[in-house]
Amino acid sequence: MGGDYAPHETVKGAMAARSDHNLELLLVGDRAAVEGELADYDLAGQPVTFVPSVGKIGDDEHPMYAFRHKPDASIIVGTKLVKDGRADVLVSLGSTGASMAASALILGMMEGLERPCIGGPFLGLAPRTVLMDLGSSVDCRPSQLLNFAALGSVFAHKFLEIPNPRVALLSVGSEKSKGNRQVQESYQLLERSHLNFVGNVEGMDFFTDKADVIVCDGFVGNILIKFTEGMGSALGGYLSSQLSPLMPQQELTRVLSELWQTTNLPRTMGGPLFGVNGAVLVGHGSSKAAGVAGAIDTAVRCVRWSLVESMREELSAVRIRGLTGGEK
Amino acid sequence: MGGDYAPHETVKGAMAARSDHNLELLLVGDRAAVEGELADYDLAGQPVTFVPSVGKIGDDEHPMYAFRHKPDASIIVGTKLVKDGRADVLVSLGSTGASMAASALILGMMEGLERPCIGGPFLGLAPRTVLMDLGSSVDCRPSQLLNFAALGSVFAHKFLEIPNPRVALLSVGSEKSKGNRQVQESYQLLERSHLNFVGNVEGMDFFTDKADVIVCDGFVGNILIKFTEGMGSALGGYLSSQLSPLMPQQELTRVLSELWQTTNLPRTMGGPLFGVNGAVLVGHGSSKAAGVAGAIDTAVRCVRWSLVESMREELSAVRIRGLTGGEK
Repeated sequence: MGGDYAPHETVKGAMAARSDHNLELLLVGDRAAVEGELADYDLAGQPVTFVPSVGKIGDDEHPMYAFRHKPDASIIVGTKLVKDGRADVLVSLGSTGASMAASALILGMMEGLERPCIGGPFLGLAPRTVLMDLGSSVDCRPSQLLNFAALGSVFAHKFLEIPNPRVALLSVGSEKSKGNRQVQESYQLLERSHLNFVGNVEGMDFFTDKADVIVCDGFVGNILIKFTEGMGSALGGYLSSQLSPLMPQQELTRVLSELWQTTNLPRTMGGPLFGVNGAVLVGHGSSKAAGVAGAIDTAVRCVRWSLVESMREELSAVRIRGLTGGEK
Repeated sequence: MGGDYAPHETVKGAMAARSDHNLELLLVGDRAAVEGELADYDLAGQPVTFVPSVGKIGDDEHPMYAFRHKPDASIIVGTKLVKDGRADVLVSLGSTGASMAASALILGMMEGLERPCIGGPFLGLAPRTVLMDLGSSVDCRPSQLLNFAALGSVFAHKFLEIPNPRVALLSVGSEKSKGNRQVQESYQLLERSHLNFVGNVEGMDFFTDKADVIVCDGFVGNILIKFTEGMGSALGGYLSSQLSPLMPQQELTRVLSELWQTTNLPRTMGGPLFGVNGAVLVGHGSSKAAGVAGAIDTAVRCVRWSLVESMREELSAVRIRGLTGGEK
């Protein structure tokens, strides 16, 4: 029920993804709305189940308050399907805050994490570089950045199939002494961990292939991702005016559309919530059917690669090594 | 003597700027090197003076150590010319750290500031949006962000001729409650100040004209500026491959060159050190003659608009209002 174009585009995208991946679908939502959409499809013999919920939780609602007053909202019903083992993964197009709160409360957090973390590739120009965290935790202790690094390393290894992912801290210089207090202290933790830590990288190093996983707090990550989207739009407008006298309109439209996708990667693939004891993926609220299908595609890959189990193991390994003071 | 192409390109750029602006030039450097360059010019009757110095301080040297061991380095001799009133403004292409340290020690900081701050427009796509701080202070208390806001406001008013500059904090959401602790606390200070504070802006708002001055700490600012440069280069490469089959090479080169300038604005105009009791401007170390002339052009404008005096007054106004608890 979440998402700007729910339930029409959500159902459409889910149906497309279903036939691509041969999935069993559980569609959670208000009865009248979802059944109205399903009437357009021939579902005889298809593994598509409707699961009723009542209402949804918006971006503008405080999650904890909303949970008490809307106990049957779609995000709560959907998250419980994962908790009860009826679903392997939940895909939500709704409020990220509500998804994070529902995941943390219903599925529970892995040890060492206080709230879900969001991460993944965010640049089409660097589609194999993972940024963690993209905005869930704006004030982070060094131990949190270490946990983000472990989660990102598993994601890069399993999801992007990078054998021994190089992990770096985002800073203002490559030397160990460079950075704010948070980064300097995190450097010491990462150095002692078993992760393949390659030191600090700088802002330009998203494009220089020095690291597979770049770690920062959610304040910096959120600013970067929104800056990238804004810059993509602004550059699109700039290039449109520069190039339109020089090439056919049709070609220009294609180039600019690819540029937009390049600077809006999370809108096309969605982002898993890391650190939760269950698989949950949040797609962009403005997704149409293709974006919904893209988010489901990402979700399917998270399940196939057993991301949740691997992340729990990696966090545990990081914690044990930290407790025993293991040196690299 | 600083800068990758010193003294050849530095002298060349200075000579070009001199004739554009009718300046009196003081060229500080090693005698043999600078006099060798000057031999190429006809200086009869020209107001060009050579001021001897010995050696230079590199990026890799600790400024305080270097100051003791190289008391006649070019940055020290040049900064003293400003202190003694022999120069109106110093332009350095050398180490930013050495320039900052020399300015703070020799010229002294304005009250309330611990070290110089660097700021200005950094995006060709948003040439009238000022970002403060670009990297001098990576751990900032809220009072420092307030001071940066005051300095940026003066710069936008005087240098960009914006009557009542809108000042914003860079955060992860526009609401007052959004942001990390640093931003939430700074919000309260800015709200009570006499500045034209318009609240929080997000990463995309460098491109939406919601604010004239955007304030963040130097950690975030430095990452953003380097990210922009990296993205400019990566997009240039991407667009080159996309567009080269579609348009004449000559046109493509022109478009890509403009794109580079758009994402590398500080390389073409240099950045003033704010908060210092004297005018000092640091140009990009990789500047050739055009970049040197651009930095001098910026320096001349800083002097013509009396930026130093205006900034001192504005910091004082912010401080007095803070002490008296003035409400907006």
